Amino acid sequence: MSKADKIKARAPRGFADRNPADLAATERMLAAIRESYELYGFEGVETPFVEYTDSLGKFLPDQDRPNEGVFSFQDDDEQWLSLRYDLTAPLARYVAENFDALPKPYRSYRSGWVFRNEKPGPGRFRQFMQFDADTVGAASVAADAEICMMAADTMERLGLRGQYVIKVNNRKILDGLMEAIDLGGDDKAAQRLIVLRALDKFDRLGEAGVRALLGEKRVDESGDVTQGAGLLDWQIDRLIWFVTLRSGTGAGALVPETRNNFNPLLEISGHQEPMDMLSAMDAAYGSESQSLKGSQTFSSGIQELKEIGNILASAGYDTKVMMDPSVVRGLEYYTGPVYEAELTFQVQDEDGRPVRFGSVGGGGRYDGLVGRFRSEPVPATGFSIGVSRLLSALQMVKSPIVSGSEKPGPVVVLVMDKDQIAAYQRMVSALRQAGIRAELYLGSSGMKAQMKYADKRQSPCVIIQGSNERERGEVEIKDLIEGAKAAQAIASNEEWKAARPAQFSVAEAKLVEAVREVLARHFPSHFG
Amino acid sequence: MSKADKIKARAPRGFADRNPADLAATERMLAAIRESYELYGFEGVETPFVEYTDSLGKFLPDQDRPNEGVFSFQDDDEQWLSLRYDLTAPLARYVAENFDALPKPYRSYRSGWVFRNEKPGPGRFRQFMQFDADTVGAASVAADAEICMMAADTMERLGLRGQYVIKVNNRKILDGLMEAIDLGGDDKAAQRLIVLRALDKFDRLGEAGVRALLGEKRVDESGDVTQGAGLLDWQIDRLIWFVTLRSGTGAGALVPETRNNFNPLLEISGHQEPMDMLSAMDAAYGSESQSLKGSQTFSSGIQELKEIGNILASAGYDTKVMMDPSVVRGLEYYTGPVYEAELTFQVQDEDGRPVRFGSVGGGGRYDGLVGRFRSEPVPATGFSIGVSRLLSALQMVKSPIVSGSEKPGPVVVLVMDKDQIAAYQRMVSALRQAGIRAELYLGSSGMKAQMKYADKRQSPCVIIQGSNERERGEVEIKDLIEGAKAAQAIASNEEWKAARPAQFSVAEAKLVEAVREVLARHFPSHFG
Repeated sequence: MSKADKIKARAPRGFADRNPADLAATERMLAAIRESYELYGFEGVETPFVEYTDSLGKFLPDQDRPNEGVFSFQDDDEQWLSLRYDLTAPLARYVAENFDALPKPYRSYRSGWVFRNEKPGPGRFRQFMQFDADTVGAASVAADAEICMMAADTMERLGLRGQYVIKVNNRKILDGLMEAIDLGGDDKAAQRLIVLRALDKFDRLGEAGVRALLGEKRVDESGDVTQGAGLLDWQIDRLIWFVTLRSGTGAGALVPETRNNFNPLLEISGHQEPMDMLSAMDAAYGSESQSLKGSQTFSSGIQELKEIGNILASAGYDTKVMMDPSVVRGLEYYTGPVYEAELTFQVQDEDGRPVRFGSVGGGGRYDGLVGRFRSEPVPATGFSIGVSRLLSALQMVKSPIVSGSEKPGPVVVLVMDKDQIAAYQRMVSALRQAGIRAELYLGSSGMKAQMKYADKRQSPCVIIQGSNERERGEVEIKDLIEGAKAAQAIASNEEWKAARPAQFSVAEAKLVEAVREVLARHFPSHFG
Repeated sequence: MSKADKIKARAPRGFADRNPADLAATERMLAAIRESYELYGFEGVETPFVEYTDSLGKFLPDQDRPNEGVFSFQDDDEQWLSLRYDLTAPLARYVAENFDALPKPYRSYRSGWVFRNEKPGPGRFRQFMQFDADTVGAASVAADAEICMMAADTMERLGLRGQYVIKVNNRKILDGLMEAIDLGGDDKAAQRLIVLRALDKFDRLGEAGVRALLGEKRVDESGDVTQGAGLLDWQIDRLIWFVTLRSGTGAGALVPETRNNFNPLLEISGHQEPMDMLSAMDAAYGSESQSLKGSQTFSSGIQELKEIGNILASAGYDTKVMMDPSVVRGLEYYTGPVYEAELTFQVQDEDGRPVRFGSVGGGGRYDGLVGRFRSEPVPATGFSIGVSRLLSALQMVKSPIVSGSEKPGPVVVLVMDKDQIAAYQRMVSALRQAGIRAELYLGSSGMKAQMKYADKRQSPCVIIQGSNERERGEVEIKDLIEGAKAAQAIASNEEWKAARPAQFSVAEAKLVEAVREVLARHFPSHFG
């Protein structure tokens, strides 16, 4: 094959390789999450990566746009298959398929890769991992409260105490509000979805951006135009007032940002007595919001939040979980409580401004999803963690969960004489049998390249046996960590050569013992 | 949505869900394999599930057969993407892409799902997991020997001591043999691949089946016809003689089945002196095999096996790794040593006959794969474990790696009064905070259904607090494991009711302590 015929080696756009440090840290983080979920009685279950497209609730791909958001392909029997785009739709299929055999309510968890056929960007991949927990078959909001507590416990277990908040809202409240501002009814479902997605972007776009998306259109910095929901100003005012209730930035800044009270929706800052949101909205806008008083949806949403509040307070979680009207979640299938795990420590955004780290997971109640397969109603609620985003947060705060996962590199036995490979291999085997990570140098290069290799592998020490050492029945051990320290201390090159720091000989029979001493000196927690 | 509109809930053909026991057992098995590979200095690296189709070495799908063996789909920019069908081709892409940054030789491992667009069958899935380890950039057969030792150590760590053998062969020997029987040359590459795949099926089809595949055609029990390689009888005889050298079933039964000697290829049973295979073949067939003596390929294959033998003997692995000419591996890309991990304990085949469990993994040297991307030669060798097959073997021999992974079910707090949910939740939280797996019953059913739920969840005990217990400040603990034992012992129903076995009251403040005692009694290893 000529050079011109060579294939260019590259991963597809939006797909990434994962290095050893990431793999080890992810593994430890997933194990900690699993432990937390197991303690709550959740059990693991996993579904395959491929589902029938109709099971995922997507329309069949057509010739013009075969891959709208999902990766799809046709099976031999002409049926359309898709790579899953989340873990919720496959779970709904699994529960519907195994309904009679499962305990009800059914608590389960799973981590796994999902795929989006979208435009990739910085930090935006087409394959990414989620970690989900769901309770299926429980209509009670005690199930939602439990998942909020579990999310809080999980953040604590990951070393994030004091640096997170679990935020709760209820989609029914927002639905009631939308009814009250003339956005009810089946014919306005598409418009409502645009509203939801716009409100969900408040953190990222700020009030002005969201107002634009709720109105005619938004033009971003690059000049790209996004069509808006086409609402009128009075409708937009009320929506913005609502989602900024807690954040203290909007017109209805009723609850200070720092407040750690459980029920900001139901209280008004400065009042001793709780006061419901209807009165608050009346106080702000007068009679135009009166129609909320008749909304069943709205009052049942408020009632559910009160119940969740009682359970959380009773179990001692009222300082970890907060009500927050700005939690919207952009998916249309939520039907009740919605929740989000937010990390509160500061990072810098793309323009260097300090911002909260933000959401690492979220979820809510989706009472309709399993019902697509079955005739009886099957209520369900669930929470999904964005694994790589949570991992980068843990790395930022140097959580012990991920920072303790680095192992010492392998001891490298150098090859000084090629005809002695079997003897060198015997040393390597002896080290490994003693539980010491060890390697024979397997390349064909000389001493200098072998030392470079050992450096690259972050070896704590190398083993050397040339003919002189062999005749004396000895091996040389070169302590690379000590050597690096000494090299910094010794000024001149001559002095360095004369001192031969951190290099010593032992009888071949003492090899394992001597190496273990070197390792114990540098890694007391592994070999002490 | 009417009932007729409901979607049928089903996983696609050849794709399976995974239950909690399988997940936990797999997780433990993978951890043990990782530990073993880490000890050898291998480090984890993972690639995405999707690659450009040309990177995988497949021809571009065409309109008629878009999915020949792999699942493929076109990206927005018209480039073809495929789900990976193994972990070796993506590793070759990864190494070629990151060549300068990697240590060389480069040892790495990964576990992951792969996908085959093939006809599914019993135990034959279209998504399955492999666990691979590869050394790239080492031309020396010391790298192949190392992987064989690592495979042996891994089997031992998994509790399979005395129940496995690592079998080694060299593709060059077979290539030399094929040259000697007029199957050399580029124009016969397709025929050689048919021969390789036929020989690789010896275990499953037996001699008659393989002879049919090497000759004109094979007709299976259902009447399906497979076209054969079209060889002549004298060619077939020599191939069969070769692959049955070790197994003791063919014409050249030189080495008894039970023999644990390292170099059966180089020795002949009954001779004290090693004798090379050329002489053995001469002894069996006379001068027609003379041309082997001139085959460079053949003698370099023998020479490499000798070197591997020396290294293994020196490290003390000569009773765990054996030469075996029947190891062929059906892939065309192998260029040198090939190896296989076989489990030797007996199971029953589909017709109830005793057979060896057989192969759980294999691999070999593939010096050409990375070279598809780069102009310099990049030698490589690697080993791949079939994860679900190995797991079922461990379950059969009750390996402690997988059998110890069952956890006690959760303690269930029953809901006797719906208005006391917050109080019940407090008990659950107290248990969880003490590290005890616990659940609040989240359904809406009565006492009887709640007890059934607890049984289904394999709860060790349930917690009951009705109004009577609440007034006294107590809770009832019902020990379900003790109860089940007692129920077996007590004959009459009256006696059972009077005795109320394994049910007792404690002060609410003593709840955690009392539950811990129950658990310690039944699961001393978890709570003792």
